[in-house]
Amino acid sequence: MKNWLVEQLQRMNLSDVLVRPQGFTREGYTSEETEAIEVFKTIAEELGLEASEDAAGNAIARWNVSGGQAAVAMGSHLDTVPNGGAFDGGAGVVCGLGALKMLKEADFEPQRPIEVICFRSEESSRFGVSTIGSKAMSGLLDPSIGTLEDQHGVTLAQAAESQGFVWQELLNAKRPKEQLKCFVELHIEQGMHIVNHEKDYGVVKGVACPIRLAVTFNGKAGHTGTTPMDQRKDALAAAAPFISFVQETALQVNDAYGNGKSLVATVSTLTVSPNSMNVIPQTVTAGVDIRSVDDRLKMKMADAIRSEAKRIEETTGVAIDIEVLVDNPSVLLDDGIARQLVDAGDHEAYLAHRMDSGAGHDVMNMAQTWPSGLLFIPCKDGLSHHPDEFAAAEDLKMGVELLSRFLMEATANAGNS
Amino acid sequence: MKNWLVEQLQRMNLSDVLVRPQGFTREGYTSEETEAIEVFKTIAEELGLEASEDAAGNAIARWNVSGGQAAVAMGSHLDTVPNGGAFDGGAGVVCGLGALKMLKEADFEPQRPIEVICFRSEESSRFGVSTIGSKAMSGLLDPSIGTLEDQHGVTLAQAAESQGFVWQELLNAKRPKEQLKCFVELHIEQGMHIVNHEKDYGVVKGVACPIRLAVTFNGKAGHTGTTPMDQRKDALAAAAPFISFVQETALQVNDAYGNGKSLVATVSTLTVSPNSMNVIPQTVTAGVDIRSVDDRLKMKMADAIRSEAKRIEETTGVAIDIEVLVDNPSVLLDDGIARQLVDAGDHEAYLAHRMDSGAGHDVMNMAQTWPSGLLFIPCKDGLSHHPDEFAAAEDLKMGVELLSRFLMEATANAGNS
Repeated sequence: MKNWLVEQLQRMNLSDVLVRPQGFTREGYTSEETEAIEVFKTIAEELGLEASEDAAGNAIARWNVSGGQAAVAMGSHLDTVPNGGAFDGGAGVVCGLGALKMLKEADFEPQRPIEVICFRSEESSRFGVSTIGSKAMSGLLDPSIGTLEDQHGVTLAQAAESQGFVWQELLNAKRPKEQLKCFVELHIEQGMHIVNHEKDYGVVKGVACPIRLAVTFNGKAGHTGTTPMDQRKDALAAAAPFISFVQETALQVNDAYGNGKSLVATVSTLTVSPNSMNVIPQTVTAGVDIRSVDDRLKMKMADAIRSEAKRIEETTGVAIDIEVLVDNPSVLLDDGIARQLVDAGDHEAYLAHRMDSGAGHDVMNMAQTWPSGLLFIPCKDGLSHHPDEFAAAEDLKMGVELLSRFLMEATANAGNS
Repeated sequence: MKNWLVEQLQRMNLSDVLVRPQGFTREGYTSEETEAIEVFKTIAEELGLEASEDAAGNAIARWNVSGGQAAVAMGSHLDTVPNGGAFDGGAGVVCGLGALKMLKEADFEPQRPIEVICFRSEESSRFGVSTIGSKAMSGLLDPSIGTLEDQHGVTLAQAAESQGFVWQELLNAKRPKEQLKCFVELHIEQGMHIVNHEKDYGVVKGVACPIRLAVTFNGKAGHTGTTPMDQRKDALAAAAPFISFVQETALQVNDAYGNGKSLVATVSTLTVSPNSMNVIPQTVTAGVDIRSVDDRLKMKMADAIRSEAKRIEETTGVAIDIEVLVDNPSVLLDDGIARQLVDAGDHEAYLAHRMDSGAGHDVMNMAQTWPSGLLFIPCKDGLSHHPDEFAAAEDLKMGVELLSRFLMEATANAGNS
């Protein structure tokens, strides 16, 4: 099974290795993504599954059974960030296929259909919007985002059309609730919690979605040599305590709440204008990324940031504007599914770590309609979105065993969906 | 005289106004600068002066007298920063010409030659190096800077050659010490000290030259959503207290030393990498500009910055590199010339403010060889390097009267130079 998983993952990465110096660049709605998805469909057919594609370009590999029961679905994606790794997305796709292979080889007879879904365009790197395929399938797609452009001026609608899809028809990818019973995504952790807690895999309780702010400090330019210190409105000097505040407050919140309910907050971008050695900074814009599974904690942090901005504005005379770029509520996953994923580990003698996800995934959208779960396998050094991203074949195999066990339970009867 | 000054300054700015929304863009060693200098030579000839140009393209308007005595020289420049004003440089050139016009009209007979020098390429905006013409005349030009490029990839040597000069021959612009007796520059203040002290003009004691540092914070990138707060090496979070330190320490130093011995220090540039909303900042480079006429104070500040960087490095684990970009000792001007400039004001009933200059000027270079002085006239709101830069015709006329009075004293006898 380990060799089969590595080989199929290489095929879907259009490569004969899984780590290479420049990583993998396979962005959403490109011919590279389409090519990878074609390989996925080929492998599905080799396994005796029915391969199809919906109006958004999501590919579905289905183990059909007679009758109209709701299917148990798994899935992830095959697009990558630029110079990303072979496992972010791909691990979930290959483990889903591997689980069906294992069940077929064991002559297991599911009482309801099973699907592996390969979603389109999960990463936000190309158009600034993530999880487009799963948004379409869950009925969460806002068609107005078709006008978003990539860095070459190609719109999302044009990109989809370049791969054979009609933008307005993407809405048709929405699936009726009764078609699926539940959904499970397997993904690499992109962090170190599992290893740090000396566990084997992760079962996710909630997915933290960000509040993102653009905070602009409006100072006044002047000659660095001739403007006295006490007559300045230096936008960068005003931004500095703000940056420190975000860092220190996030640390304090985590100390106060402990590991169970954590929050991360980062000033991740900063642009200075005019950014010239002999001119006092006139304008600084800071991008703040706040995440927690607990939405109240995120909002409390955003409120604290607003108060601190007000304090800095009053003490420095530098006017501060705050724009909310993103404010998505976090997603709590289904407790019943999570219990089944933990039970699957008990059965296979793997230790589960119950945890939250700091990053977003396709399962966020699926969870709006169907009971959903998210299973993490470890990745080396917690590294992801990086050419060195890696997950051991041993851990991929564990993923297959966990999914198989979960599927055996979830498809054991054809009762009400 | 006022109308004449405004008219000639308009001519040299190749314009019929002195303030316009987009300002003036006339960078060093461009055809625009050459054209302005041609107008300067034309005006000089209209006044009956001898106009010539040296190997660096500095233009000299000379009121010759028989005999080989050392000349009394004045001067400034006609190049501007992009979208700069009509007065930074131009005020000194037009007032020099105006002073000769006034003396000629008064039938004054100088006992030694008088020159007005229009230096080439004073601003650092194009090639990152300032005062190229006066460096050449003072023998301070390092010919290796000919390879410096502007933002279009044109080298300084190519730019000089495009205006008819041979780079290696710029060194020939160096003048023997015995050719000049002394040098005086008139410039707009680019600050508010004169007005704040309720005086009419400024007489400069020393010119503050900067220490400039590039401080690089080497953190570690990671996913903003999945990397716990206490396991980060956030380069921007490490840079924030550094920025605050520079600001606060400069304020404290000024409080401690009072107005007499001041220091300014600015973190004026900052670049963040990768500057992406969902990635923890990996590398931050901050540009620090430190200025004081007191070189020990500057060095003390640079030392304090090094200690603070070490402290931050130890507490955050973010490695910090400090590169010294510029470390020029400050220039003290000639006391005797300064006294003569104050006396000139006494004679004309203008009040002089004795002060330092936070910005560099051509006089810094001339002062290395000849006794030199720097005279400031006020400019509106202290604004410079800005389209709204402005100096009143009344103040230009005051400059002419002060220079004339100075010249009458300085050229009254042909004694030892």
